[in-house]
Amino acid sequence: MEKRPLKVSSGSAASNTPASYHATDEKVRRIRRLSNDLVSITADQYGGSNLRSISVSSDDEMIDITTSGTMTEHTLGDHHHGGGGACGVYFSGGESLVSVDSDEIPGIGQYEDFHTIDWQRDIARDRMRHRYIVKRKQKSICDLVRGAHDAWSGWLCVLLVGLVTGGVAGVIDIGASWMSDLKFGLCPQAFWLNKEQCCWSWSSNETSIEDSRNCSQWMSWSEIIAESNTGAGAFIVSYIFFIAWALLFASLAASLVRMFAPYACGSGIPEIKTILSGFIIRGYLGKWTLIIKSVGIMLSVSAGLSLGKEGPMVHIASCIGNILSYLFPKYGRNEAKKREILSAAAAAGVSVAFGAPIGGVLFSLEEVSYYFPLKTLWRSFFCALVAAFVLHSINPFGNEHSVLFYVEYNKPFMFFELIPFIGLGIIGGVIAVIFIKANLYWCRYRKMSRLGQYPVTEVLVVTAVTAVVAYPNPYTRMSTSQLIYLLFSQCGTVKDPLCSYQFDPTLNGSGGLKPGEGLYWAVFLLILALIFKLVTTVFTFGMKVPCGLFIPSLCLGGIVGRIVGIGVQQLAFNYPHIWIFSGECSTGECITPGLYAMVGAAAVLGGVTRMTVSLVVIMFELTGGVRYIVPLMAAAMASKWVGDALGRSGIYDAHINLNGYPFLDSKEEFTHTALAADVMQPKRSEPLSVLTQDSMAFEEVEAMLKETEHNGFPVVVSHESQYLVGFVIRRDLNLAIENAKRTMTGLRNNSLVLFTTSPQSPLAPHSPPPLRLEKILDLAPITITDQTPMETVVDMFRKLGLRQTLVTHNGRLLGIITKKDILRYIKQIDNEDPSSVLFN
Amino acid sequence: MEKRPLKVSSGSAASNTPASYHATDEKVRRIRRLSNDLVSITADQYGGSNLRSISVSSDDEMIDITTSGTMTEHTLGDHHHGGGGACGVYFSGGESLVSVDSDEIPGIGQYEDFHTIDWQRDIARDRMRHRYIVKRKQKSICDLVRGAHDAWSGWLCVLLVGLVTGGVAGVIDIGASWMSDLKFGLCPQAFWLNKEQCCWSWSSNETSIEDSRNCSQWMSWSEIIAESNTGAGAFIVSYIFFIAWALLFASLAASLVRMFAPYACGSGIPEIKTILSGFIIRGYLGKWTLIIKSVGIMLSVSAGLSLGKEGPMVHIASCIGNILSYLFPKYGRNEAKKREILSAAAAAGVSVAFGAPIGGVLFSLEEVSYYFPLKTLWRSFFCALVAAFVLHSINPFGNEHSVLFYVEYNKPFMFFELIPFIGLGIIGGVIAVIFIKANLYWCRYRKMSRLGQYPVTEVLVVTAVTAVVAYPNPYTRMSTSQLIYLLFSQCGTVKDPLCSYQFDPTLNGSGGLKPGEGLYWAVFLLILALIFKLVTTVFTFGMKVPCGLFIPSLCLGGIVGRIVGIGVQQLAFNYPHIWIFSGECSTGECITPGLYAMVGAAAVLGGVTRMTVSLVVIMFELTGGVRYIVPLMAAAMASKWVGDALGRSGIYDAHINLNGYPFLDSKEEFTHTALAADVMQPKRSEPLSVLTQDSMAFEEVEAMLKETEHNGFPVVVSHESQYLVGFVIRRDLNLAIENAKRTMTGLRNNSLVLFTTSPQSPLAPHSPPPLRLEKILDLAPITITDQTPMETVVDMFRKLGLRQTLVTHNGRLLGIITKKDILRYIKQIDNEDPSSVLFN
Repeated sequence: MEKRPLKVSSGSAASNTPASYHATDEKVRRIRRLSNDLVSITADQYGGSNLRSISVSSDDEMIDITTSGTMTEHTLGDHHHGGGGACGVYFSGGESLVSVDSDEIPGIGQYEDFHTIDWQRDIARDRMRHRYIVKRKQKSICDLVRGAHDAWSGWLCVLLVGLVTGGVAGVIDIGASWMSDLKFGLCPQAFWLNKEQCCWSWSSNETSIEDSRNCSQWMSWSEIIAESNTGAGAFIVSYIFFIAWALLFASLAASLVRMFAPYACGSGIPEIKTILSGFIIRGYLGKWTLIIKSVGIMLSVSAGLSLGKEGPMVHIASCIGNILSYLFPKYGRNEAKKREILSAAAAAGVSVAFGAPIGGVLFSLEEVSYYFPLKTLWRSFFCALVAAFVLHSINPFGNEHSVLFYVEYNKPFMFFELIPFIGLGIIGGVIAVIFIKANLYWCRYRKMSRLGQYPVTEVLVVTAVTAVVAYPNPYTRMSTSQLIYLLFSQCGTVKDPLCSYQFDPTLNGSGGLKPGEGLYWAVFLLILALIFKLVTTVFTFGMKVPCGLFIPSLCLGGIVGRIVGIGVQQLAFNYPHIWIFSGECSTGECITPGLYAMVGAAAVLGGVTRMTVSLVVIMFELTGGVRYIVPLMAAAMASKWVGDALGRSGIYDAHINLNGYPFLDSKEEFTHTALAADVMQPKRSEPLSVLTQDSMAFEEVEAMLKETEHNGFPVVVSHESQYLVGFVIRRDLNLAIENAKRTMTGLRNNSLVLFTTSPQSPLAPHSPPPLRLEKILDLAPITITDQTPMETVVDMFRKLGLRQTLVTHNGRLLGIITKKDILRYIKQIDNEDPSSVLFN
Repeated sequence: MEKRPLKVSSGSAASNTPASYHATDEKVRRIRRLSNDLVSITADQYGGSNLRSISVSSDDEMIDITTSGTMTEHTLGDHHHGGGGACGVYFSGGESLVSVDSDEIPGIGQYEDFHTIDWQRDIARDRMRHRYIVKRKQKSICDLVRGAHDAWSGWLCVLLVGLVTGGVAGVIDIGASWMSDLKFGLCPQAFWLNKEQCCWSWSSNETSIEDSRNCSQWMSWSEIIAESNTGAGAFIVSYIFFIAWALLFASLAASLVRMFAPYACGSGIPEIKTILSGFIIRGYLGKWTLIIKSVGIMLSVSAGLSLGKEGPMVHIASCIGNILSYLFPKYGRNEAKKREILSAAAAAGVSVAFGAPIGGVLFSLEEVSYYFPLKTLWRSFFCALVAAFVLHSINPFGNEHSVLFYVEYNKPFMFFELIPFIGLGIIGGVIAVIFIKANLYWCRYRKMSRLGQYPVTEVLVVTAVTAVVAYPNPYTRMSTSQLIYLLFSQCGTVKDPLCSYQFDPTLNGSGGLKPGEGLYWAVFLLILALIFKLVTTVFTFGMKVPCGLFIPSLCLGGIVGRIVGIGVQQLAFNYPHIWIFSGECSTGECITPGLYAMVGAAAVLGGVTRMTVSLVVIMFELTGGVRYIVPLMAAAMASKWVGDALGRSGIYDAHINLNGYPFLDSKEEFTHTALAADVMQPKRSEPLSVLTQDSMAFEEVEAMLKETEHNGFPVVVSHESQYLVGFVIRRDLNLAIENAKRTMTGLRNNSLVLFTTSPQSPLAPHSPPPLRLEKILDLAPITITDQTPMETVVDMFRKLGLRQTLVTHNGRLLGIITKKDILRYIKQIDNEDPSSVLFN
């Protein structure tokens, strides 16, 4: 076969040789598709503008790509690249020579802000890129290295993400711990140390955490100012310092967020869920968000607000994943592939937040991610493990377990205890629903009223109230994670009024569990703490500071659980003859209130987030014992069912709904009986904006672009027949037209716009040269028939990651369904306002 | 709106009122679709034959279903059902009255043996059924109970599966342990006890497992026969008994499999993967398979063959899942839904095999399942946990950990040890690939040669050789799981030559690690055992007895790992001044050879099965410490990469390929550049068998059915235009024609067959009544264009669970692609025989 040069690009070059199009056969068509894809890939990789030509030859099976400028260092992600010579760019697989001048349409294949991505298209682009690299691997050592680099870049990227996430988490943990202690006092010898480190480094190595509470090296503010640690004066000094520091931290956090990175507020998980479902929010995972969120979460945790750093850790990890993915063009330049890295990063975020790598992966799989191929599972696990390992090496918690609340119980649970555990699950579910509803009400009020205009003031007021109310109660004065640790722990390992039992010499054994005065008081304080935490968390979650929900939820549940545990323990102690307690548990000593606290914590967290497997695994990894999976699971199930019965969705989905993000839930089933014909746009009476393959003039196309706002246009054979040919994206069409105007001579308003290589009627002899746009035409749009049930359509959208689908009847185009159409339809059926679905 | 009775069924009734069809509008069409679905559901649930009529009315919004016979007890799965009165069957949602005589087409919606299921259709059927039950929930208490039962039936089913699986696993563990010990001796006081129980129950409670080795209550065969336990005579008696019992057990297992349940052989995982990917193999998960596999695995494990019971446990659990799903029509009668239960059952199988519930779920997710919605994840976890809990309560291993090989190491690993661990991973990968290739070669030889005709003889020969060679070597004489336990354990907790170190008084500390004479001998025996196990496993896996691969793989890796571990230990002991050993590890005591054994075991198992996350989690659950995840992961990754580089697929996929199962791997990427047009059938030159919507005579349709063997036919507008209307499944068409022949008067060879309610040309005045088949027409087939890249098509097949897809160009039908076409195309590209893909 002889080489026949064939211009397939649009623009002037193409218009000179229209005859070559008529010679096309199947093979040439396929080659063109290949080369089109390739051009968009290579155009991406070469920065879009300096690509000169691609040629595909039949005899030696190669496409030759030459660039107009010097190749940049990171072309094809290969840093050993010297120039166009030794490591030239070849592609084999074609059968005819196609030469494309493609430097005229930059930006094709990218997305605009607040738009939905097309997974199929992105994945196809990646496959093409991959094939191209694999094919070239045999050509030279240079290409082999490049191929190896490409094959490893996924692993390398998640490795880097894991390393950086672990490091950042360590810094945040250390910083937050230092600043939290700063509210109470200072280490005069070394102000950069927190209380624990201060006591540890200036005293003997034997000092345990408990002993360090009263170490002499650490000085409280009252000691520094009033030179006394007791009395009303000292209390007031401490109180004032506590409030002052809290306000300082909170105002700093709120101001930083407001000034530098408005996206850094909140937990970020609803937005990350939306982004991972295939949506573009530029800047949400950018470097400013990363910096401000990292600093802000330290500040807001230190301010003593009722919030945690676990949700924000996921956001921070995702930012790291996004930023690092730009080092690898395979991921950075392909939105669908980038989401694989983001899924792994989310797993790493939970992994460092709790020291639970497996739980992190399952959280990413269950809660956050949308598209989770098995390859991602393995990489996510690796990423989560690396992050946990790095954090463990930094050792911010100062113990040998890289876990926030390491607990070990020495008693197994009794079978009858499943009853209180399930009870805890129910209570947890109810508390969670109350919290969600109240929080949503308040967030909606904030959105609607003028309150939303004063975010810093709001933060300051809430902080002031929190600090003023929290200080007098020791359980709220300490940080929330310390409180959770205390609640989870066994009596014997900690000293606290919660463990003040009277020794009763009339009882044999270990002295019995007769409650002391301190216990009653402690329980009373815990109840106050519960109410306080519930109320403040409702107001806190949604403020314009970085704030997570895991820790407050765990704390609420922990308090309830501990109280119930103490109750059951006293029941067993006082009524040892009830049959369930008889036998092994007649003194009540088989009851571990700490376990109840843990179960309660799981219940509330499960109710709030509706996590299931990942919740159980995270809690199991916290304790490190398979033994307590059954209680945790019982409570998590009860809580989820109660939650689902009382309120429809978890807090994240509720916030997604509140904010109108275009998120098509992959868990909720579409239960309506509609057919595609009911949902599609336009409705039957309205006209459909379509392009025809070979009968529209340039001005008609331009007019249609001006008149409509659709993101894409179907291309049909003719207005009369409406048989579907393909689909064109508005952005591509705009770019191509802009480009044609700039470069194509002889383009007139009555020039025909051709989307086919073989128009049905030959061009009139004196007509202006046609504008050939078949290059940007997607010949393989996903289509469905009008009789397809909407469940199937929704399934296809979810599983294939579609941006739109075309509806046909007997081959004729009837309409189009986009993700937004489906979301609006669902809202309409649920009697909500369909226009609350934002963006496209 | 007035009620207008409208017959939509085919057959005589329909042919009397053709006019009513012409009055159809969109709504009626939709109703018909609804009622069609409903009929197939209710026909299913009522046994298909005693359904009399369904009516849908517009005013009170109900469909009335009456049956011709008495309702059976399990209609709609409700056992409180008294008859058609109190709990009548209603359906609301329609808008016009449609009355269907549907007792004439039984069996529509079922599948034939060795056919692929249509997930979309089954899931749509289930959604319809679900909606129907939800709608009726408000009608009466009876319906409310039924609705609740339906909502809970999934949980109830997995609960039952978990309970039964745990129970069966306990029985198998106890039975296998008893029979394994029977090869060595007997408990004279109570023959039904195994050695451990015998020693434990007749002596003091203090006896540990180690001490029980030489307890006096247990008598070996040489003691019983020759009344001596030492000397050549005793050895020979024991040897003979060992071989005799082994042959007896093996011949029993092979004969049972041959006679009663041929499907009970092998591990079953390749077939279960195929079944879960949407394929019907009748009887593969039946009760006979369950019984024979349970008995057979006990026998074949006891026979001392080199096999494990973990793969078969997955098969047994799946059988239990399948059998119990028939208690719940929602699952039993819907193949797609049934697979959710089977996924959960597979998780329970691994959970009981290893005592690793989380690992089981991940195994099911990663390795076995195809379609794994998140709901299934949670249920699988529940099922796995229940099964583990039941097994734990039965306590077959006689220890407090419900884990096969519980090990606890008291030393952390050193960072430099990652080098030998990765080395172990590489060795493990190489061993795994050697094993897979040799085993495949042997299995292919067995298939081709006459050897396959003598399965029992083959089993006996292999058993005899195994027993004769195994007995002299103590490491192969003991059961494989005991050997693994020994290899994994730390010196100090077990007494074995592997731990015979000489005490060297010149060294301070604990005496040093100078190897004793016994250690050299033990290592030599281990090397012999490694070769023996590798060779016998190659010949064993694939024989016609139940046999799993996990235990032999773990054993191979454990031996290698232990040897490497001892080597590294001695290296550190002898060269303490090498920099990596200096510091904490200068005496070699930081090296735990047991940990190396575990890492090696993970490496070989990972190489053989190509599991990743699930492997690490299973191994982690075996030890219960997060600490060793990093070494396990390093080895698993190295092993998988080496394995993937040397041999393409894991053992399960290789066996799927060998047996030609129609399995479209969801992990392997389709990397070819083909378009749909290249893969579709028929090729361009051949004619396509299509039906037309309103222009084919009855005899033409019958002739087409006779001449072709396709499983379905596209319906087009006309032969000339080829515009696609819908799709008809062969089975449905056959059933409908059979039925019409039986019931429809006036059916003649030249009767028109109509697939539309509004034919384009009116019927000729004297033509015979047409056969109306629009009821069986699927109006929503999945279509793609001929330019769709095959990656996208394969993606759609995998994610949507398609049975076939239709290929169009500009709305015209070009061809059809089935799963088999894709598999054949892949085989063809890979230069394999495309006709080796079996079934449809």
